[in-house]
Amino acid sequence: MRLLVTWKDLNDEDLQRIVEETQATILKGFTEDEALEFAPDADVILGGSATVPILARAVNCRWMQAPFAGVESILAAQWGNPNMVLTNGRGTFGPNISEHVLGLLLSFNRGLHLARDNQNKKIWQPRLPIPFRELTGSTVAILGYGDIGRNVAKRLSGFDCKVLGFRQHPSSTGAEEENVYGIHRFAEFLGSIDYLVCALPETEKTIGFLDADYLKRLPKHAIVINVGRGSLIPTGDLIQALERQWIAGVGLDVTSPEPLPEDSPLWSMPNVIITPHNSGYTRFMKRRVLKIFFHNWEYFIQTGSPRLNVVSRTLGY
Amino acid sequence: MRLLVTWKDLNDEDLQRIVEETQATILKGFTEDEALEFAPDADVILGGSATVPILARAVNCRWMQAPFAGVESILAAQWGNPNMVLTNGRGTFGPNISEHVLGLLLSFNRGLHLARDNQNKKIWQPRLPIPFRELTGSTVAILGYGDIGRNVAKRLSGFDCKVLGFRQHPSSTGAEEENVYGIHRFAEFLGSIDYLVCALPETEKTIGFLDADYLKRLPKHAIVINVGRGSLIPTGDLIQALERQWIAGVGLDVTSPEPLPEDSPLWSMPNVIITPHNSGYTRFMKRRVLKIFFHNWEYFIQTGSPRLNVVSRTLGY
Repeated sequence: MRLLVTWKDLNDEDLQRIVEETQATILKGFTEDEALEFAPDADVILGGSATVPILARAVNCRWMQAPFAGVESILAAQWGNPNMVLTNGRGTFGPNISEHVLGLLLSFNRGLHLARDNQNKKIWQPRLPIPFRELTGSTVAILGYGDIGRNVAKRLSGFDCKVLGFRQHPSSTGAEEENVYGIHRFAEFLGSIDYLVCALPETEKTIGFLDADYLKRLPKHAIVINVGRGSLIPTGDLIQALERQWIAGVGLDVTSPEPLPEDSPLWSMPNVIITPHNSGYTRFMKRRVLKIFFHNWEYFIQTGSPRLNVVSRTLGY
Repeated sequence: MRLLVTWKDLNDEDLQRIVEETQATILKGFTEDEALEFAPDADVILGGSATVPILARAVNCRWMQAPFAGVESILAAQWGNPNMVLTNGRGTFGPNISEHVLGLLLSFNRGLHLARDNQNKKIWQPRLPIPFRELTGSTVAILGYGDIGRNVAKRLSGFDCKVLGFRQHPSSTGAEEENVYGIHRFAEFLGSIDYLVCALPETEKTIGFLDADYLKRLPKHAIVINVGRGSLIPTGDLIQALERQWIAGVGLDVTSPEPLPEDSPLWSMPNVIITPHNSGYTRFMKRRVLKIFFHNWEYFIQTGSPRLNVVSRTLGY
């Protein structure tokens, strides 16, 4: 088996471990030139978005393991082997992304972003120009109730919150779950949401979903956090919602476009906290993704197909 | 009954409600001159630290209700009536202070303080000069396992942490609790602590308690949060611990002295997050403290003494 590795985070030690676990011939494609050269020979690819340009040449590739969860750019690319199976890294980011979400929510509640600005100016100013808020006892809606959404809900369990989950296919877990609804019912709950956490993938259905109409119907004190994809919220609508104070604030780990242009007003609006699409970063990523990869490798060798985290080309995730 | 009110956060509506609930004659002492004038007439005082200078003149005061928890300055003052009973506001700050603590911990883990600095410069920089960390699955020690400590522990329940509580009197709640220890056993656990949350009152025993010797024995990756009193950690020892990287970072809501002097190196050290002693701020404070006050008032009228949150002059809290 020839395994093309384009995932640049892996070091020699990791590659050594991959050889030991898979017995594969490693094709190291850390530069685009290398990857393009090796692509036609690859049976399997382990790598991420940098891999997109080489997919067309990967005519013999039967399986690609992406290390991250959002694979819309890979799905949109031309595949040399249209029957290639794509697996992703979903299920590995729950702890870090949910901690990122709670960190952003609590920053708003406690004014930690403003305290940081004051710290940089060496100003001791206990009273801040925000109302101190409490997450405790509030209603938190989670748009996109998959692995990340569930991890957020789990970490809210000590805060006595009412958690509402919304997902495309609420019954995909088998039994019906309490307070988990189809996304078509989201509008019914808008007026009761204190905090809205967005963790949706980018699909045809989600692009532009959270528009001015919805933002307007949230309570004025609502805080919105987006750790899914920036395309969920039309940027113009979001700026309008903040300017007209339809909502109280927004924490964005994702924007549209990315990186956020220097002239975007979002950078300096007082009720915006921006993190640069790094909620997925965790030093446990390699360990967790490789665990999935090795598990999939075993199945791939035995059955010709990986088992975990297979992406549906129809659903887009 | 004559009730001297020195708590400046109360507005006319609050005072009206107090009159209705207590039928007391209100002596409004929002300025020091007014408070000094009315002090000798007061049967009861409702107010905070600004009340200290007038305590010596409050010769007829049988009960004072402080709205906050840390009453060391009131205990240190001269009391006109040495038999006055002091009650405090403990039990009302659990939600907000515990959210503040988790906000600080998660800011360190996700680099939110550095993201804020970059936001102010309109810089999109996903990789930060810190290791992204996870609270999930870690060991959190809580020094001072009273109401605030328990609220922190409760909010950690969704993070799969091992929580260790340390308090002066571990058996004061009656039954022995799992993982709650006498503070004399703290040293045994130092090497296993990933996050140390300090929520101790200021007493003879706590001043200077967390010194260089202890800080040195924490793991190098440990993060320390202090929301109790700045006097717990000798400031010189803390600076040394950060400079020599005995610990990875510190989140301070309290400092010694306060406000933190402009020339303190703590303001600009890269691994320090400072909030200006405002973790206790919540817009629910008045409602919660007045609930205790009214409850105590009823008992005071019936028995001559308040019932809830009586401060021990021996223990200091």
